[in-house]
Amino acid sequence: MSESFEQMWPALAAIGRDPESGGYSRGGWTPAERESTAWFVDQCATRGLEVESDGLGNLVAWWAPGSVSGPGVVTGSHLDSVLNGGAFDGPLGVVSALAAVDRLRADGFQPSVPIGVGAFVEEEGSRFGMPCLGSRVAVGAISAAKALDLQDRSGVSLRAALESSGTDPAGVGPSPLLDRMATFVELHVEQGRALVDEGAAVGVASAIWPHGRFRFTFTGEANHAGTTLMEDRHDPMLTYAMTALAANKQARLAGARATFGRLTVEPNGTNAVPSRVVAWLDARAADDATLQSLLQAITRQATERAERDGTAVEVLPESVSPVVDFQPGLRDRLVEVLDGVPVLPTGAGHDAGIFSAAGIPTAMLFVRNPTGVSHSPAENAELDDCLQGVEALAAVLEDLAR
Amino acid sequence: MSESFEQMWPALAAIGRDPESGGYSRGGWTPAERESTAWFVDQCATRGLEVESDGLGNLVAWWAPGSVSGPGVVTGSHLDSVLNGGAFDGPLGVVSALAAVDRLRADGFQPSVPIGVGAFVEEEGSRFGMPCLGSRVAVGAISAAKALDLQDRSGVSLRAALESSGTDPAGVGPSPLLDRMATFVELHVEQGRALVDEGAAVGVASAIWPHGRFRFTFTGEANHAGTTLMEDRHDPMLTYAMTALAANKQARLAGARATFGRLTVEPNGTNAVPSRVVAWLDARAADDATLQSLLQAITRQATERAERDGTAVEVLPESVSPVVDFQPGLRDRLVEVLDGVPVLPTGAGHDAGIFSAAGIPTAMLFVRNPTGVSHSPAENAELDDCLQGVEALAAVLEDLAR
Repeated sequence: MSESFEQMWPALAAIGRDPESGGYSRGGWTPAERESTAWFVDQCATRGLEVESDGLGNLVAWWAPGSVSGPGVVTGSHLDSVLNGGAFDGPLGVVSALAAVDRLRADGFQPSVPIGVGAFVEEEGSRFGMPCLGSRVAVGAISAAKALDLQDRSGVSLRAALESSGTDPAGVGPSPLLDRMATFVELHVEQGRALVDEGAAVGVASAIWPHGRFRFTFTGEANHAGTTLMEDRHDPMLTYAMTALAANKQARLAGARATFGRLTVEPNGTNAVPSRVVAWLDARAADDATLQSLLQAITRQATERAERDGTAVEVLPESVSPVVDFQPGLRDRLVEVLDGVPVLPTGAGHDAGIFSAAGIPTAMLFVRNPTGVSHSPAENAELDDCLQGVEALAAVLEDLAR
Repeated sequence: MSESFEQMWPALAAIGRDPESGGYSRGGWTPAERESTAWFVDQCATRGLEVESDGLGNLVAWWAPGSVSGPGVVTGSHLDSVLNGGAFDGPLGVVSALAAVDRLRADGFQPSVPIGVGAFVEEEGSRFGMPCLGSRVAVGAISAAKALDLQDRSGVSLRAALESSGTDPAGVGPSPLLDRMATFVELHVEQGRALVDEGAAVGVASAIWPHGRFRFTFTGEANHAGTTLMEDRHDPMLTYAMTALAANKQARLAGARATFGRLTVEPNGTNAVPSRVVAWLDARAADDATLQSLLQAITRQATERAERDGTAVEVLPESVSPVVDFQPGLRDRLVEVLDGVPVLPTGAGHDAGIFSAAGIPTAMLFVRNPTGVSHSPAENAELDDCLQGVEALAAVLEDLAR
């Protein structure tokens, strides 16, 4: 007999947990991520699901009882994590998918199309710096050559990481798994508190907000911290500091998100006025126009402050993803099946967004997160809500595969 | 015949210059610093000066013509630099000392006490993180054991660096060189523009400002940069940014200096609200009370902002050096010899401050810096001003050694 959600969850959650922080660092092709993947394959084998892999290591395990064959409905998520992340982001969607299939089988449901349980690699991009790497390669949004040249922080290329794990890099490219993926549904822990405010355990995604990463380079003049009069300085740290506060203010005014979470300082010495500060702005908003005007407002305040400080500021877009609207027909069908649960947008990128942008009918389910915290060991979801998520996913699969 | 200032300067300035930035990175016991030291020893040999070294590698080269012996007047500075620093900070004092001795000899001056030319190691602390390392060890302000355990950024200890350069670490400790150093005079490029404002090529130091290094630790909550509402965040970057702006404002109000030039961010990911920002405040003021109230004002603004942000801030003093007032009698004597040149304080630490605090009568001369910039490749002094500095130093030595 298959393990229940309550049995699977603690078994998977035990893999690679940092005993000190309680967090997980499951970058792609690291030991902890490989162990989680092995656990997944083992769970599929126990259930008699047929696991298919593409050349990069994306997996879909098929339940195709009786004579059903051909394309079907895939549900699932990812098993990798950010650095020191939580237990739920990714794994909840995989474990819930297995539990939902178990539920349908226990109910004696006979699908008319196959149902697949998917686990896609390196969704967080925490090792190779490219979010949704597995799905991007699968749909051909990034070429095999470009993907294989990506390097981790130690300078190890994806090519080398694949070879070390016994995978032939020649097989990397657009994924044959997608030929059988007629529809994709991803269940995910909510990364915010909208469902708390709504008083609902489960919700349906409307869209993924547009998202931009912009590199701000603030250039001033290195000088002695002890002897240089404040009035004689051209200190780019001050321009940066003002810009960080401006980003917060402008994002609040626009109902958007703006974050400076990554920074490098040169020469980064205690007794030196910096010559340069490079800071990355992560900005997201409900629509492309709001994102654009948010960036403009922040850039304007940065430029004004740079004039005061006698510094220079340069803004370079590193990546800008337009809004992803999930297919309205599919979304409405989920809401109907789930008796009118809340519909909400998300500011986070997901494999579901990549598949949707590639033209595959795609939907997402969110499970309530009591604190809204994610990408942190404090990320959480109550067991009762998780079980309601499994019920909702089973109902959706039953409807789509009937 | 000895090389003139104009001949020595370009020869020394050519050693270890980064052709791209024009800067110097002469950390203690690095190849560029060793080469500069070898150049110094060679110049002393050319002049027939007797070079004495202590166990750490501080050098004094004695000019003791005729029957003079015993303690004397030492002048000099250091040959090491900050990372990507300028040509003048340190070397100007050493080259000017050699040129001043040449000038006295050419004039047929017969000193009644020996005159020494000193070069003290690792004054900037750019390799082992401890400013004025050579003079601190020499006066016993830091123990040999503590000094030898210092590590550079690559984890190499001072002990290992000494062994690699053929020096026995067992000889490190309070310096016998100081037994003969009755008076110390350091000539240094000005690290500010006071002499520009005064219209003078040379000035005399009144005091070294008190100086504190304080580690500010801002702690918040890691979270997802895309999904976490601005209102739900506890972002320590915002608290830091406000504190950096407050430091600038409070230092201007107090006529003091406050700099945040060094920073670490955790996890330092583009899509993560940081969990922690650690920033180092370098603060200096004209007197101890002003320094204290400056720190209090900055800490108060940091704490107030932390309450708004739902973050925490902790302030830890890493080092606090009290004011160093140079001996007034000696200072006044220099001013008189130099026909009433300006007297000015400095915000920078120097070996002269360490020797003065250890009870050795000490004075400093400053040479005009047209831009005030130092610790940067743009650091500069005009040749005419440098030559006036040599004249002034020669006059001071003649007076003190008469």
